[in-house]
Formats: sequence, structure tokens, C-alpha cells
Amino acid sequence: MSKQPIGIFDSGLGGLTVLRELRRRLPREHFIYFGDTANVPYGSKSKQTVTLFSLAIARFLEQEKHAKAIVVACNTASAQALNALKKHCHIPVFSVIEPGAERAIQATHNGHIAILGTEGTVRSKAYEKALYKLNPKVRITAKSCPLFVPLVEEGWERKPATRLIAQEYLAPIRKSQADTVILGCTHYPLLREQIVRILGKRVRLINPAEALAKKVQETLPQSTHAETAGKGSMVLFSSDDPARFKQLAQLILAENIPAVHLKKLNV
Amino acid sequence: MSKQPIGIFDSGLGGLTVLRELRRRLPREHFIYFGDTANVPYGSKSKQTVTLFSLAIARFLEQEKHAKAIVVACNTASAQALNALKKHCHIPVFSVIEPGAERAIQATHNGHIAILGTEGTVRSKAYEKALYKLNPKVRITAKSCPLFVPLVEEGWERKPATRLIAQEYLAPIRKSQADTVILGCTHYPLLREQIVRILGKRVRLINPAEALAKKVQETLPQSTHAETAGKGSMVLFSSDDPARFKQLAQLILAENIPAVHLKKLNV
Repeated sequence: MSKQPIGIFDSGLGGLTVLRELRRRLPREHFIYFGDTANVPYGSKSKQTVTLFSLAIARFLEQEKHAKAIVVACNTASAQALNALKKHCHIPVFSVIEPGAERAIQATHNGHIAILGTEGTVRSKAYEKALYKLNPKVRITAKSCPLFVPLVEEGWERKPATRLIAQEYLAPIRKSQADTVILGCTHYPLLREQIVRILGKRVRLINPAEALAKKVQETLPQSTHAETAGKGSMVLFSSDDPARFKQLAQLILAENIPAVHLKKLNV
Repeated sequence: MSKQPIGIFDSGLGGLTVLRELRRRLPREHFIYFGDTANVPYGSKSKQTVTLFSLAIARFLEQEKHAKAIVVACNTASAQALNALKKHCHIPVFSVIEPGAERAIQATHNGHIAILGTEGTVRSKAYEKALYKLNPKVRITAKSCPLFVPLVEEGWERKPATRLIAQEYLAPIRKSQADTVILGCTHYPLLREQIVRILGKRVRLINPAEALAKKVQETLPQSTHAETAGKGSMVLFSSDDPARFKQLAQLILAENIPAVHLKKLNV
């Protein structure tokens, strides 16, 4: 078991930030990453369709790649497909939601937490449920920000248009006086600078990806840890355009990466 | 044959503008529309993946629905998958590219045409090839506008942020002094007002969807026309969230439409 890889997936590239964090924490492990770039984005699609994609990826990771655990780096897939994944997989499944909610509860002083996410994540109320479970008295404000993902993918993080759009999305958050904001999509930490400028430095921004990596490290039984003497490894798959994926992955992971493999999903 | 439907497809809703135009011109025909909302958008994906999706849709339309012709309403699919579609289909396949190019050539006075499209459409150079074929001396400026589709889908056509983004995308078009602009994506006509404001009223905007509908009407042999005494019909399919699709389709088609059916693609 210790030699089996940990599987990670996301609708695209964003989950590589989780992989980066996991490799930092668990440098001896083997990782298999799957980015579903043929079907990206998940954020605007129905629960049924996101579940279909997620289960197909989980089958690939568990049955073909013999993963010992699955890490759902995508907030939308975590929010919409977690129950189905837990039902169909025979290995531990880690979602980004609970660790993000835990960290937010620890961080808030005034008990008011805001959630930013895709339409699917916000519609699912998955963060709300996780937060209420930890503290039934917490106040919550949620806002979907559908344009944030395409703006980041266009590389427009610092443009004036992006500031205008962020101002509009974040207006209800400012008004709400939440002191803690969950960046509930792997793309959003790339807009951290704009968000801080609008909400002010006193608001705490929670990146659930970091909390998730810590959770995986703490939860995976010692006995299942890889015991490679030296460095662990990673193998990357994408369902579309592996050459482009590799180029962008290199930027995010900030290290030389091996060839990215093309893997078409059997949905 | 005359009773067989005409199949139309798009990555999502945009192609419904082609359906609307076709129903106006051919009111007695039966139409089957397929919107691939589970895999939308096509614009940022590879030729290989767009071709895979397009062929799966064509199989559905030709083999399951016995279409007598296929109309590719999507510019990206027209630009990237037309050859594959023509190779694999046994019925006429209409692309949006040639009719759009023809109309642009007719419209230009100074022989300089601009193309706006998705990354995939611009990368394919399909409009360039069609334009050069009609007039080897034409001058062409092309610009991909990846944020236009998400802005339209968010309903932000009239926002200041959209104007800023359009100004940036259209700057090279303004500078080029092209007098005719092809709106090479079914979403872009919804931004017509902003585009006119930036480029000026003297620039002619070409909507290839209108040209395509005219082409289909003129090209389909009289003998294959439906001879329904009264009104023709339409049946709508989407690969995700048919309820949401129906709601938006009603707005675009401006008429009551029957239930939208869910159809998962066999890619």
C-alpha cells in the first residue's frame, strides 16, 4: 500500500496548487494528478454532470492507477459529487470543503464568514453545511463569482476591468462585515491582491487548498505512507491538450515536470 | 426524405439564433437542435477534443435522429471539425464559416476584414482561408476574445467592465481600419451595441448565423424540403441541465418551446 500513489483531481489546472502543497508536506509520496481540461469548467454545470465526470475520474485513479486515496482538489466537485464519490470508491476520499470550513471557523473573530465560489459550489450550500456543523451560530454570506475563473485563465488578474468586476461581486461581502472569507475555488487565490484591495487587509482570506493538504498529511495513516528513500514522484494527466497543460503546470508547480499524458475520460 | 429533420448543433445556446433564423426561412421544416452544455465551451479546447465532441453529436443527429442535413452553428466546431464531419457524415454538412466569409467579402469597401472569434476559431485560421479563397487580395486582422462568452453568459452585456474589456480586445481592430468585422462566435452578436460604440457606426458587423440560414435555404434541394401543410416542428436536446436550457432557449427563440430532452453524448 505504501507504494501506491495518491490521486488528485480538478476540473483543470487549479488543483495543482493542492499538489504543490501536498508534495511539500509529503515529499516521499507518489502522486497522480488528473486535470479534466476537456470538460472544464465544472462551476456552471449541473450536479448530475459534475458527478458523472468525477466518478469517471475516480474510476481511473482507483481502478487503473491503484491510488490509495483520492484528493478532490476542485471545490465544485467536492461540493456536488462527494457523496457519490464516497459511495463508489473503496479508498479514502478527501474533500476541500471541510478543511476550508474548519480553518475559517478557527480564523473568524466576529463569527461572520463569507464564501466565494462558482455557481455550483454556492448553489450546493456545501460550505454552509460544513460551517453550521462546526458552529451552528455562525453567520454566513455567500456569493458566486462566475467571471473570476475566465479572468484568471485569460491572465487578467491585474487589469482594471478585473477590479471593476471584483468590486461588483464583493460589494455584498463588504456590506456584510464578514471578517473571514473562504476562497472557495482553486482559481481565486490568484486574485488575492485585488480581493484584499477591495475588502481591506483586516479581512482574513482562507485558501482551502492549504488546509486540505494539511488534512491529508495528518489523516493518512503512517502505515500507508510511502517509504521511498529519496524523492517521491508525480505523474500528470489531462483530458485535453497535454502540451498546453504542461506549460501552465510548470508555472504553477515551479519545477520541471515530466511529460503530461493525454487520458480521455470514459464517462 | 422530405419528412426527415434538419439537425443543428452548437456547444451551447448560441446556435439557437441560427435555429430561429432557419425556422423563419423554412417554416415547414422539422428541426432537431443539440446544445452540448455538458462540454461547453469549445472555444478554448483543442482541435482533437472539439472534433471528438462534434463527431459524437453528428452520429446522434444522423444515425439516431435520421437528419437529412447537419448545420454546424458553432464557429469553433465549424473551424476545427468540418473536415472530419464531412468525412464521417453521409448527409450534407453546413458550416458557418463560408457563408460568413462570403457576406464579409460582399460588404467590404476597402478590402480589409476583421475577424473576432474564440481562441480555437482564430487559431484555426478557417475564416482567413475562406476569405482568401474568395479574394486573395483581401487584408485580414484577427483577434480572439476569450472573455466575451463568459460575459454574455453572465448577462453583463451592458456593464462598464464589459466596455473596458471590449475596448482592449478591439484596439487592434480599430487601429487596423478594417471596415467589416465578422462576429465569429454565436455569442458575439449580443455584444453588438458595445462593439458599435467602440468601432463606430461605419464599420459593418457581419453575423455569420444569418448568412448560414440563407445558405441552407438556398442549397437544400427543393425535393428534400418538408411538405408539412402547417407549421414545422423543433425538438431540443442538451447534454446538461435541460430545465435551465429550456428557460434560456425560450428567451432566445421568443416562443414557447416544448420540453428540452437530456441526451448524454457517447464520445
